[in-house]
Amino acid sequence: MSAEQYDAVDIIRAQRDGRPITEGEIRWLVDAYTRGYVMDAQMSAFTMAVLLNGLGRDQIRVLTDAMIASGERMDFSSLGKVTVDKHSTGGVGDKITLPLAPLVAVFGVAVPQLSGRGLGHTGGTLDKLESIPGWRAALSNDEIMAQLRDVGAVICAAGTGLAPADKKLYALRDVTGTVEAIPLIASSIMSKKIAEGTDSLVLDVKFGSGAFMQDIDRARELAETMVALGTDSGVNTTALLTDMNTPLGLAIGNANEVRESVEVLAGGGPADVVELTVALAREMLTLAGQPDADIEAALSDGRAMDVWKRMIRAQDGDPDAALPTPRETHTVVADRSGVVTRVEALPFGIGAWRLGAGRARAEDAVVHAAGIDLHVTVGQSVSAGQPLFTLSADDESRFDRALGAVEGAWEIGDTAPAASPIVRERITA
Amino acid sequence: MSAEQYDAVDIIRAQRDGRPITEGEIRWLVDAYTRGYVMDAQMSAFTMAVLLNGLGRDQIRVLTDAMIASGERMDFSSLGKVTVDKHSTGGVGDKITLPLAPLVAVFGVAVPQLSGRGLGHTGGTLDKLESIPGWRAALSNDEIMAQLRDVGAVICAAGTGLAPADKKLYALRDVTGTVEAIPLIASSIMSKKIAEGTDSLVLDVKFGSGAFMQDIDRARELAETMVALGTDSGVNTTALLTDMNTPLGLAIGNANEVRESVEVLAGGGPADVVELTVALAREMLTLAGQPDADIEAALSDGRAMDVWKRMIRAQDGDPDAALPTPRETHTVVADRSGVVTRVEALPFGIGAWRLGAGRARAEDAVVHAAGIDLHVTVGQSVSAGQPLFTLSADDESRFDRALGAVEGAWEIGDTAPAASPIVRERITA
Repeated sequence: MSAEQYDAVDIIRAQRDGRPITEGEIRWLVDAYTRGYVMDAQMSAFTMAVLLNGLGRDQIRVLTDAMIASGERMDFSSLGKVTVDKHSTGGVGDKITLPLAPLVAVFGVAVPQLSGRGLGHTGGTLDKLESIPGWRAALSNDEIMAQLRDVGAVICAAGTGLAPADKKLYALRDVTGTVEAIPLIASSIMSKKIAEGTDSLVLDVKFGSGAFMQDIDRARELAETMVALGTDSGVNTTALLTDMNTPLGLAIGNANEVRESVEVLAGGGPADVVELTVALAREMLTLAGQPDADIEAALSDGRAMDVWKRMIRAQDGDPDAALPTPRETHTVVADRSGVVTRVEALPFGIGAWRLGAGRARAEDAVVHAAGIDLHVTVGQSVSAGQPLFTLSADDESRFDRALGAVEGAWEIGDTAPAASPIVRERITA
Repeated sequence: MSAEQYDAVDIIRAQRDGRPITEGEIRWLVDAYTRGYVMDAQMSAFTMAVLLNGLGRDQIRVLTDAMIASGERMDFSSLGKVTVDKHSTGGVGDKITLPLAPLVAVFGVAVPQLSGRGLGHTGGTLDKLESIPGWRAALSNDEIMAQLRDVGAVICAAGTGLAPADKKLYALRDVTGTVEAIPLIASSIMSKKIAEGTDSLVLDVKFGSGAFMQDIDRARELAETMVALGTDSGVNTTALLTDMNTPLGLAIGNANEVRESVEVLAGGGPADVVELTVALAREMLTLAGQPDADIEAALSDGRAMDVWKRMIRAQDGDPDAALPTPRETHTVVADRSGVVTRVEALPFGIGAWRLGAGRARAEDAVVHAAGIDLHVTVGQSVSAGQPLFTLSADDESRFDRALGAVEGAWEIGDTAPAASPIVRERITA
């Protein structure tokens, strides 16, 4: 007889048949899977049953808690500052963390942004920052604490010690068609964020063609699930549902996204990037007890830029060094005059990926100078022959596949479409 | 890039989202799983999605065909006889194959019964026959053909060459909570039966507490699915839905079930065993073109017994040898007078299993003399103190756990329940 307290097949069957599984069963399942007692084949059958049958709010909370319990927890309480974190579900051209973290830190709030690398068409914050000569992503816990105390903002690699059960489970879901389950997405994201020990958390949940959730209703369900999870775990959590049908800003890649972020920190930059950065900063500072902070001033008077430079230098980067430039470029021009009616996020994300800005496998390197720079935005008038966007790569052989990806992904018409705000809804507990 | 034609995750996602998967995808999936390219974790996610979302009739046919294609096929066409097979989904006290195969062979029909061993509370036909001194289950294909030609009936072990994909998939389903999917049960059973190459097939699909399908509606759905599969593959197939709420006959075990089968072949035996044996023989002979065969005469005049003895001798068994007897017995008597109103199949099956008649793991041995002999049937009047049933085992320490299993599983009341026939429905193409 086994000394194990539960039987994996009994738990799978209950989830399969819609009988509620208990707190003890969930905790055992996560622990036994992390130990290797429960097999991958059993866990993938369970996750498919979760995807198809759902999981109750209490069960999602226990699942998240069990994943947190699988690893270490960070503790920022000795800082003497309020900590506020932001998490985005990922999109095309989403560099918001870069200007946002130093901007919020201007107001005396600690902003720990433990981030990841990109996989597939959505880039990773660490990949972008690694365009900066000398900058290093890996910090010790002591270095993170020191930087939060001295600078206020840190963007670095999440340690492998946070929620190891989630890492194992995510890798399994990725190859078994069970990624797209809201209870599992929510517990995966929130287990890491809660283990990180932040006081407050703002979620940027994206919907649209370039987002993980194409549909706003599914994005809302995910946001509500995560806000509930955070709240239940004592983390002040709010979420914004934001539009990801069109790339965010003009730069899609790595070095070019850093350049665009620096423009925002210098008080300029594309209107949509500024709009979303300020909206998220407002949410974060509201949770931190500063609802009336003059965010725009911190961008225009150089205080956010100061924090940015100190943040980059603290991680051995040179904020004034030249960023990598591409060996080859290829510019596409308008074939007619008119107004830009459509620029689709997903094809441009895939195009940048094919140029080398992203990776297909975790072990691949990214090309920091590769990507796409848009020269126009939706609603803008253009003349025939005017540059629309420029592809950048280290090897011109990549242009054909990237052009294939973006073919039909933009449109020039006669009438400007109605403008729509990026932030569509705000979800609170 | 992989040289594979399809991607497992794409196929899992389609099945998950209710998009019909194609013939090419199903064939590739089964082949790639058998080769080890598709991982267990992927196949279990797929089977869970099949269990929860179902599979269309054409898809079940292709899945079955792909499992047949994974191994060898037998061919009885050189026999010059019609071949008819029977398959039961398994129940408590189900020894029907033993009298049925020789009985049908009396009429010049070839009856190949490629059988298995038991696992859990339902016994295996081979385990029962191995009670007979000298009898061997493993025959070569040449020996099977010779015995079908010379004797007409053969009950032996199914070779490992038939549908190896099914063997691998069944082992996976067993540990991942995905056994109870009708499309997968149907394709598992029918892939082996079709690969066996029989002309006709009668299915005994059981429902009730001692059956795999407790509910008659699910049993009907399984029967209809299998009849359609057989028919689509050119095998004349019919099914009977039969009651498995009460043990079949009086003997539950191995040697005692052989004894009861011999009683039936001698023209006696419990009425329910005779009723079901004759009903299945009628189905088989009807499919073989002999709807008017005088089945009862073949039992009463000794012809079925003659074939039985020749069948046992052909496999080196001695049909006249004494069968194993138990070292220990324990008899339970009626604590009141009245009429037997209930004898539940599942608890008595589990009780016999705990006495040693069945196995918990495939590598365990069974105790041939272990089991339960009922002395009364439902509807029979009993007096206080009259023996109800006898437990048999090699070790009296087993009695307590067996008695625990059967506790509350029988009832003596005041009024006999209405009698109900064993065969409830007949399912044809």
